[in-house]
Amino acid sequence: MEGERDLKLRPIGFIVSPYKTMEEAPRQGFLSRQPSRIVIYEAYRKGLDGIKAGMELDVLYWMDRAERERLYSEGKGRGVFLTRSPHRPNPIGVSTVKVLEVGDGEVVVRGLDAIDGTPVLDIKPAIKG
Amino acid sequence: MEGERDLKLRPIGFIVSPYKTMEEAPRQGFLSRQPSRIVIYEAYRKGLDGIKAGMELDVLYWMDRAERERLYSEGKGRGVFLTRSPHRPNPIGVSTVKVLEVGDGEVVVRGLDAIDGTPVLDIKPAIKG
Repeated sequence: MEGERDLKLRPIGFIVSPYKTMEEAPRQGFLSRQPSRIVIYEAYRKGLDGIKAGMELDVLYWMDRAERERLYSEGKGRGVFLTRSPHRPNPIGVSTVKVLEVGDGEVVVRGLDAIDGTPVLDIKPAIKG
Repeated sequence: MEGERDLKLRPIGFIVSPYKTMEEAPRQGFLSRQPSRIVIYEAYRKGLDGIKAGMELDVLYWMDRAERERLYSEGKGRGVFLTRSPHRPNPIGVSTVKVLEVGDGEVVVRGLDAIDGTPVLDIKPAIKG
């Protein structure tokens, strides 16, 4: 709480997706059957060390076309924190994906609902429920 | 990719936790047995509408004491994107928690490994695996 903090995100890469608009994208990542590519910028590629086909990962991305002022979903009749809508104060998407293939500085995955060009923020190994 | 983007986070609240340092905190949220409180700033409280005891939520928070330059874990012998360590380019933590109680502008939960004072970025309903 004390003083200034660096709350600025550093995109580590971007998503190459068959979904070009928010309308085309599936409502949630787990509904996505089409593969997407996660391209990681050169400066961050060392962080991918060890990622292999078959692994489950959590991918965090920045839904940069979202509206950030919305706090309530009229359609759903509940607060935005009880929805997974992209429109929220910090439009960070989280999808659990399956790795199909690992390339040079990129990872091909299934299970991502993010649209083409979406900045990627983080990748973590998924926790099995 | 084109032009400037607003990649600045807006904390929606903070965590009141029994864990005061990174050393005291459990390694992962699901290992945490002690309840934590998520206090939401007045301006964002409308977003909590509908949250009830018993629900499972994903909580996203900003691990502001993390080092952001680390890309490789020497200890684990793999890239940071294959660890859930707080030390990573965008130190965003994600924990799935259970709601124990809902108060006025706050939510008491179990399953959070974040330390006391950690800024909260987002809350979403968890997806059941």
